[in-house]
Amino acid sequence: MNRTLKVALLQDIDRGSRDANLDAIEAGLRKAAAGGAQLVLLQELHNGPYFCQHESVDEFDRAEPIPGPSTERIGKLAAELKLVVVASLFERRAAGLYHNTAVVFDRSAAIAGRYRKMHIPDDPAFYEKFYFTPGDLGFEPIQTSVGKLGVLVCWDQWYPEGARLMALTGADLLLYPTAIGWDPADEQAEKDRQRDAWITVQRGHAVANGLPVLACNRTGFEGAPDGGRGIQFWGNSFVAGPQGEFVARAGTDAPELLFADVDLARSEAVRRIWPFLRDRRIDAYADLVKRFRD
Amino acid sequence: MNRTLKVALLQDIDRGSRDANLDAIEAGLRKAAAGGAQLVLLQELHNGPYFCQHESVDEFDRAEPIPGPSTERIGKLAAELKLVVVASLFERRAAGLYHNTAVVFDRSAAIAGRYRKMHIPDDPAFYEKFYFTPGDLGFEPIQTSVGKLGVLVCWDQWYPEGARLMALTGADLLLYPTAIGWDPADEQAEKDRQRDAWITVQRGHAVANGLPVLACNRTGFEGAPDGGRGIQFWGNSFVAGPQGEFVARAGTDAPELLFADVDLARSEAVRRIWPFLRDRRIDAYADLVKRFRD
Repeated sequence: MNRTLKVALLQDIDRGSRDANLDAIEAGLRKAAAGGAQLVLLQELHNGPYFCQHESVDEFDRAEPIPGPSTERIGKLAAELKLVVVASLFERRAAGLYHNTAVVFDRSAAIAGRYRKMHIPDDPAFYEKFYFTPGDLGFEPIQTSVGKLGVLVCWDQWYPEGARLMALTGADLLLYPTAIGWDPADEQAEKDRQRDAWITVQRGHAVANGLPVLACNRTGFEGAPDGGRGIQFWGNSFVAGPQGEFVARAGTDAPELLFADVDLARSEAVRRIWPFLRDRRIDAYADLVKRFRD
Repeated sequence: MNRTLKVALLQDIDRGSRDANLDAIEAGLRKAAAGGAQLVLLQELHNGPYFCQHESVDEFDRAEPIPGPSTERIGKLAAELKLVVVASLFERRAAGLYHNTAVVFDRSAAIAGRYRKMHIPDDPAFYEKFYFTPGDLGFEPIQTSVGKLGVLVCWDQWYPEGARLMALTGADLLLYPTAIGWDPADEQAEKDRQRDAWITVQRGHAVANGLPVLACNRTGFEGAPDGGRGIQFWGNSFVAGPQGEFVARAGTDAPELLFADVDLARSEAVRRIWPFLRDRRIDAYADLVKRFRD
């Protein structure tokens, strides 16, 4: 049984305006479809800059309702090009209530489902707790014509719990739109450790859950509005198979449309030799819902 | 503040008898102490062969009470050499009740604590469910003079839950005595994927929890008592730091006493830049105690 899924990840720079970014997304989706991709993963907050480098109330102007102008444009493309598209947007849910939200289209302009980023970071140059209300939709994969998509966003990628809950709900793939980069002041060795840790922990989710993982990251330098050092987004978007093995990897410094063939049948084959789900000690996991066992 | 901990991992072959294995352990501990190690990690079931390649009631003769002859000998060495030692044994708890148990000594012949392997595998050539009752002591780190040791065993290494619960209970290190190897009939590409997956998922635990990880594996070929293909244990014992970075790695095919300097102060530094414990969505993790969400 051939269950190969051709995917494409659009690793990109900020193009300077919402329209310019949506134009680049449209060009990427057309190129992905022409290349035979069935599913396209976009990077985090793809229609704008990574605006969380400072805390400013004016940045909330970037938020859009969902559905809204950006989802309308992307949805029409998903329908026209017969693509499953995983997009990432700054959602305006109500005045004073905003989320970092992934939206899934299934070969149709209609929204197939959404995921609101559950784990929200906050550290210098990534002031997300100011902007994003933690998600309230839980860890629920989104059903599409190519499978159940376990869509998570950026900071979620460090949490085995999110990946596991998606797997326990029948996800066929784990997908991470993300925006992560270096502090230019860090030494090269620290930069390497950070990038490798980011790749490793996500490949670890693939292994622990016997699932392919797709991670689409930004690239390029984005200056800080307040005169800070800015962020050098490190690209390195990748696709891993259910043993964590690399299927495809993008470079560091340039926009790239990364294609990969994902063999969905391999997940079950791998889970048969490594049946981790069978042996989970659910009788002994209760304290995972504690902040700390003290 | 200097908090460097010198550790040593004794990656070894089966020496053919309990006495021969204990002699090799003694030689390794003496060499580790002479080299300045403060903590020594032994491999899984180090005082015998990996007997789980078949199911035979006679193999239960290998089990020992704890305390018993092997812990007595290792404990005396821990006291004499002023070492923290993490050993792994086949524990006879009662007639018909056996565990795969790690035992910790803290520079003393007295047992500082024990951990009974919680996740028990069972697949061809690894028939552990026949031999080992699943642990009933939970995921509790063991306090020693060099820190709280989050000791887990082999199959546990595939489970983010075990590592997380140890971290949530204040573990300073994660330690895995293990016995994993290749089916000689597998292709080289599959062998590489398996070994890399094993390394990756454990480095992922280091990253997700901001903790160093020590994994000590067997090496050498052990034939199957029933005429099966046997297991080529793949060595590759390693030490990773709290960003998953390699600190030390052993080879594949030979016994090796692997030394490493672990900087315990780095864990807190890493957790300050990557405060994953702060942002866990404990309000949304309840279903981790389910077998599956269906």
